[in-house]
Amino acid sequence: MSRFGTLFRVTTYGESHCKSVGCIVDGCPPGLPLVESDIQKQLNRRRPGQSNLTTPRDEKDQVTIQSGTEFGVTLGTPIGLSVPNQDQRPHDYTETDFYPRPSHADWTYLLKYGVKASSGGGRASARETIGRVAAGTIAEKYLHMAYGVEIVAFVSSVSSVKMPFLESDDEDLFSDDFMQLLNTVTRDDVDQHIVRCPDKDVSERMRERILEAKSKSDSVGGTITCVVRNVPPGLGEPCFDKLEAMLAHGMLSLPSTKGFEIGSGFRGTTLFGHQHNDPWVMGTNGKLGTKTNRSGGIQGGITNGEHIYFRVAFKPPATISQPQKTATYDGTDGVLAARGRHDPCVLPRAVPIVEAMASLVLMDAVLIQQARHTATKLLPPITTLPPTMLGALTKLDKNEQVDG
Amino acid sequence: MSRFGTLFRVTTYGESHCKSVGCIVDGCPPGLPLVESDIQKQLNRRRPGQSNLTTPRDEKDQVTIQSGTEFGVTLGTPIGLSVPNQDQRPHDYTETDFYPRPSHADWTYLLKYGVKASSGGGRASARETIGRVAAGTIAEKYLHMAYGVEIVAFVSSVSSVKMPFLESDDEDLFSDDFMQLLNTVTRDDVDQHIVRCPDKDVSERMRERILEAKSKSDSVGGTITCVVRNVPPGLGEPCFDKLEAMLAHGMLSLPSTKGFEIGSGFRGTTLFGHQHNDPWVMGTNGKLGTKTNRSGGIQGGITNGEHIYFRVAFKPPATISQPQKTATYDGTDGVLAARGRHDPCVLPRAVPIVEAMASLVLMDAVLIQQARHTATKLLPPITTLPPTMLGALTKLDKNEQVDG
Amino acid sequence: MSRFGTLFRVTTYGESHCKSVGCIVDGCPPGLPLVESDIQKQLNRRRPGQSNLTTPRDEKDQVTIQSGTEFGVTLGTPIGLSVPNQDQRPHDYTETDFYPRPSHADWTYLLKYGVKASSGGGRASARETIGRVAAGTIAEKYLHMAYGVEIVAFVSSVSSVKMPFLESDDEDLFSDDFMQLLNTVTRDDVDQHIVRCPDKDVSERMRERILEAKSKSDSVGGTITCVVRNVPPGLGEPCFDKLEAMLAHGMLSLPSTKGFEIGSGFRGTTLFGHQHNDPWVMGTNGKLGTKTNRSGGIQGGITNGEHIYFRVAFKPPATISQPQKTATYDGTDGVLAARGRHDPCVLPRAVPIVEAMASLVLMDAVLIQQARHTATKLLPPITTLPPTMLGALTKLDKNEQVDG
Amino acid sequence: MSRFGTLFRVTTYGESHCKSVGCIVDGCPPGLPLVESDIQKQLNRRRPGQSNLTTPRDEKDQVTIQSGTEFGVTLGTPIGLSVPNQDQRPHDYTETDFYPRPSHADWTYLLKYGVKASSGGGRASARETIGRVAAGTIAEKYLHMAYGVEIVAFVSSVSSVKMPFLESDDEDLFSDDFMQLLNTVTRDDVDQHIVRCPDKDVSERMRERILEAKSKSDSVGGTITCVVRNVPPGLGEPCFDKLEAMLAHGMLSLPSTKGFEIGSGFRGTTLFGHQHNDPWVMGTNGKLGTKTNRSGGIQGGITNGEHIYFRVAFKPPATISQPQKTATYDGTDGVLAARGRHDPCVLPRAVPIVEAMASLVLMDAVLIQQARHTATKLLPPITTLPPTMLGALTKLDKNEQVDG
Repeated sequence: MSRFGTLFRVTTYGESHCKSVGCIVDGCPPGLPLVESDIQKQLNRRRPGQSNLTTPRDEKDQVTIQSGTEFGVTLGTPIGLSVPNQDQRPHDYTETDFYPRPSHADWTYLLKYGVKASSGGGRASARETIGRVAAGTIAEKYLHMAYGVEIVAFVSSVSSVKMPFLESDDEDLFSDDFMQLLNTVTRDDVDQHIVRCPDKDVSERMRERILEAKSKSDSVGGTITCVVRNVPPGLGEPCFDKLEAMLAHGMLSLPSTKGFEIGSGFRGTTLFGHQHNDPWVMGTNGKLGTKTNRSGGIQGGITNGEHIYFRVAFKPPATISQPQKTATYDGTDGVLAARGRHDPCVLPRAVPIVEAMASLVLMDAVLIQQARHTATKLLPPITTLPPTMLGALTKLDKNEQVDG
Repeated sequence: MSRFGTLFRVTTYGESHCKSVGCIVDGCPPGLPLVESDIQKQLNRRRPGQSNLTTPRDEKDQVTIQSGTEFGVTLGTPIGLSVPNQDQRPHDYTETDFYPRPSHADWTYLLKYGVKASSGGGRASARETIGRVAAGTIAEKYLHMAYGVEIVAFVSSVSSVKMPFLESDDEDLFSDDFMQLLNTVTRDDVDQHIVRCPDKDVSERMRERILEAKSKSDSVGGTITCVVRNVPPGLGEPCFDKLEAMLAHGMLSLPSTKGFEIGSGFRGTTLFGHQHNDPWVMGTNGKLGTKTNRSGGIQGGITNGEHIYFRVAFKPPATISQPQKTATYDGTDGVLAARGRHDPCVLPRAVPIVEAMASLVLMDAVLIQQARHTATKLLPPITTLPPTMLGALTKLDKNEQVDG
Repeated sequence: MSRFGTLFRVTTYGESHCKSVGCIVDGCPPGLPLVESDIQKQLNRRRPGQSNLTTPRDEKDQVTIQSGTEFGVTLGTPIGLSVPNQDQRPHDYTETDFYPRPSHADWTYLLKYGVKASSGGGRASARETIGRVAAGTIAEKYLHMAYGVEIVAFVSSVSSVKMPFLESDDEDLFSDDFMQLLNTVTRDDVDQHIVRCPDKDVSERMRERILEAKSKSDSVGGTITCVVRNVPPGLGEPCFDKLEAMLAHGMLSLPSTKGFEIGSGFRGTTLFGHQHNDPWVMGTNGKLGTKTNRSGGIQGGITNGEHIYFRVAFKPPATISQPQKTATYDGTDGVLAARGRHDPCVLPRAVPIVEAMASLVLMDAVLIQQARHTATKLLPPITTLPPTMLGALTKLDKNEQVDG
Repeated sequence: MSRFGTLFRVTTYGESHCKSVGCIVDGCPPGLPLVESDIQKQLNRRRPGQSNLTTPRDEKDQVTIQSGTEFGVTLGTPIGLSVPNQDQRPHDYTETDFYPRPSHADWTYLLKYGVKASSGGGRASARETIGRVAAGTIAEKYLHMAYGVEIVAFVSSVSSVKMPFLESDDEDLFSDDFMQLLNTVTRDDVDQHIVRCPDKDVSERMRERILEAKSKSDSVGGTITCVVRNVPPGLGEPCFDKLEAMLAHGMLSLPSTKGFEIGSGFRGTTLFGHQHNDPWVMGTNGKLGTKTNRSGGIQGGITNGEHIYFRVAFKPPATISQPQKTATYDGTDGVLAARGRHDPCVLPRAVPIVEAMASLVLMDAVLIQQARHTATKLLPPITTLPPTMLGALTKLDKNEQVDG
């Protein structure tokens, strides 16, 4: 369904050519300062027409807060957000009336619903992500104000052009350089290059690869890496809703995604246990931490306070204007050359979408854990455990908890 | 939480050393033939002690149906399933009272809950998956009886030992051999080798790699590939609950998983759009299908009727008896050599767990789509669309639908 | 939260003085003919200013479909609905800045959220029900097209003025007249009198009672009775989501409600079992039915195909302009005479709200049961039961099922 | 479905004659002292065979905690609870193989599921409530330890025998005596009379009425009133999940219930607004309270800290051994005299069930509000509101909040 979250619950609506797209955010904590420009910032990073790497369609994507705030503060009631569609044109004859686009959702929407929107991608359009990005900025603002959470995503590969940390062999999967990048990379770093890769040289090669595809009316895929810093410990709900499971769910719900990995990911499967384990060390701040971070900040489905980092695979966009041999709806072989202005590569615009989706996952996990931790704090201390276990419990006080 | 699914809803319970583990399956269709041996089969494939590759702990894991069936048929009411724990010993002094195990859930459970089970993995133990496997077999039985669905998972890599299709370079990502394997592989093929890889030579090398790790008191990870055949079209709920998102959620909720990819996955990100797209062709059965299947059977979050296939990454198990430098709960540096009998590699036993989790995801999607399709069939035919769109609709009748 | 339903899922948004109010309807069956006038009809019955019995505020409440339909047909995607607020005035000084209104939500919203909307009722305003009514009309249209369901609510009492069936003593709780009324009453009957009671004489006395209250700047409560005809059998999800439980949930979530009873209700508690039981009889249509209907169409939480009927209690509106002794926020005793134009009686306008809420409950139950029934139909017939039980099963075919 | 709650989530299982009945409680706060005797206490009040007023079936209903606790403390993980069924007999020939019982669930279960349990009530049996009572005691223990919440239910009427407060006319709906009763009544008071009415004379007359029905192989209904004291303010989730809506949902999900009213309820609909409103007064404890309590402790769907009180209607039990004219499954008219030992009145045993269900509703609301309140406390104070509104906010500090 078009809903995500248990306590911080987002419901989105809207097709590519209907009157508006948007969402309702239900369960936002009251008292959060919130104005439209807070939300617009990430919508601007998401919208088309930012450079010659993306679709030249010019969509302003201006958000209006319909409800849920007053005097610039959230009321705790549902926040209605809407963005008018610029293009609400009536149905135009197109070749895609006859051809389901290869690897697109035209045919599967028909199979599922028995009917589909006539123009563009309908609900499978990337415009659907506007509601997520809008909602995500609200979640992120809370996370930042309450915990100092920082979420930064960047393009780590385009086609076969990769950042150095993805080229390393097994011996060197988690280089100091990569760890340093995770510690320090900012959105400003990322936005310095239109391709949204923080590495100057690599981003230049990525740009060339995208333009090459564009010149051939073709498309390219790639990967986005995302890091989350200052994560409160204790987030994630075993067993089915482990935090990495919720992140995987969120990321694979983004259009065009084909894979997700957290921490050591697929490449970590080649290590031995003694190489992969993250030993515990006492930090200078008096808190237990891990010396390495192959776990990606999550153990047993629960955050340990270290950085979360993960990578998402995006396939090359399905809609290309290069002619393709394929069949019509009634099975006749033919050639389709899709008209319209399409993204040769979605990666640069997907960066804020990944950040938004990560925010939604974390925000919901935070609220659920706040409930648990507050509930427990109202009970008397535990005394009936064996002494060695009680010993472990006493160490908890020195570690931050989700309720401050 | 410990619940998965909307209409086919599984709730699991149980720690490694409590009285029993199990689950409640709520929402199972009534009238399904079901006896304990249906469930026991996959529990036997999951249980320890099957070979020298896994933990020598001997757990019988005998399931009892507590409710929800009569005369061998489901009643549509909740099905209670329980498996007694053989080992319900009282807490024993162990080194892990002082040391949180590196990359295990000891410390994060304490951070989250303020208390944790004293022995073994508690709720983070792999015994938690018993409830899922039991529930999954019920889902799978329904899917097979109603649609002929076949779900087969196998170990595709252990450490750096990989099946050939994972060694291929970009040009050859989806070889005919691999596609043929997906078409034909059976559980019998998989179970011919104790490592549960259907390739004889590779499985021998995998076995050696695992025994090498075991001999060093170390552990190894790997990947499992899973294929689902005869999938009804139209499954998956855009936007947030796309079928691949639900699969990713399910798989990343399994213990020790670090990654998920569907269809072309991470490797497909290096292809150009014209290489990656799956052209439509009319099948000999009169139905539209795709010529290739880089999509992995899902487009726009919805199944298209082609095989679903995906791959899951499992890290090397965290608990090793090799000595590790790490800190105690109170931050003192030391050396931990975990006692006990642990799996050097979880992959062979994880095969039925992956199959079960895939079954749970598909079953829930089937029920939701059955509701939608039945609801629509009670309405009069659509007539108000433009002629070309109505044309596309008429093709639907020749394609199978979820309600038979 | 502001969400209702599992498969037919409504999320509402909006305060009394924000930009707009509305909802997202997620899970509507595709292929349903739907235009704005379908929705507007019930919004018009709900809006203020229809007579001198209700608030003279003139709110047009014009709905716009933002998404989810094309060419007058639902797409199966989320339907965004919005109604602009006419009154979006900035905060004005009022006495209610200092006084929490007695029996209103001013103080409890502050206790819950730590902040509240400055003007009017905020989210606790009756304007919140616009989203429900809009969503309910969609549900109702489906139920009517697919099953011929008819839902008619009417005002059965205002203050101590009651329809005859509520005056009867124990011997005559379920008179033929009442049963006849349930069989035949239509919305046209109900709308013939501005108070929306189908009994001419009683409605005149109700009107007088309301005007009497109005003349004293006071308010009155009452009850609404609702009947649902042509209900498919098998609706309702034991154990926690019995159909009467969902109806009670829905009705008690309406502003100002204090009670709910179904079928024989509170008065039926005085009967003996042999009086209260509804005997089975074979109908002329070849289907089993009940001779009487004290059950209100639901047994064991599941519909039996007879009429559902229930009654809802509404308290007198809290906001009255008659001076009331009460305390300010800081506890100082004083006198509050609320300004503004308020309903002396909400009953007439609540009639379409009750109908909408009933529609939402039934629609969700229908979809869930359609899933179950379709799922079961794909399985082979049950054969393993004892012969007498198999005998009972064969009678099912003659009875309608939810999937037509 | 068989699940209740969002954060404190109970799933029950079990029919009348399967191996066991029970539940899983997911989301219980960790660190709560919990042993089986905590749960057994209310199960004993619920079980049959306590007096000659209820069924003479002797069911021991001994609960076992399967998981989720260690050393007498909850771990925060799912708590599995099971109670073996004494009576697991195979199917016996009975008349109810041929006759669906009037006003029972035999026929509706068949309509819904296409199959039903052969013996007794199956899932519609009162044995299903064992899981709820067990879960409710855990919720109640938390609520009592954390907030001092007291929940006391009692039988307020049996057939036409009523406690005095139900006999009063409009002028005197909320007498001092009744309010005093709500302030002081305890479970010990209630249990002094086997009928579980705290009024000695009335309970004697109730007992006679029940025995009269029993002697005629008939049955009687009645009402249960329940009061909840020391309720934290701020509970309840507008708009759809107002606290009274959740209570109504919970209560109408209990077997045999036909009505629910909160605070002034149905009788309050005859009052004028100026009589019904609860004026605010400053309490001696420095907190705002209401002078009267027609609201029943809830305003706008949110608790205000005053006592919650509500009343639930139970119909006479459907299964009576008096001969009844009714039809068989195949529509033949006949006479059914149900065999077996049935309750002539469920009210005395329903008292702990009502208490349990109220506990489940409150507990879930508490956890959700704890999340919200904690979330907000981590934000800086609100400063942007107009001065008069900021004034109201400052009063909040003197009132208790859900997070202590």
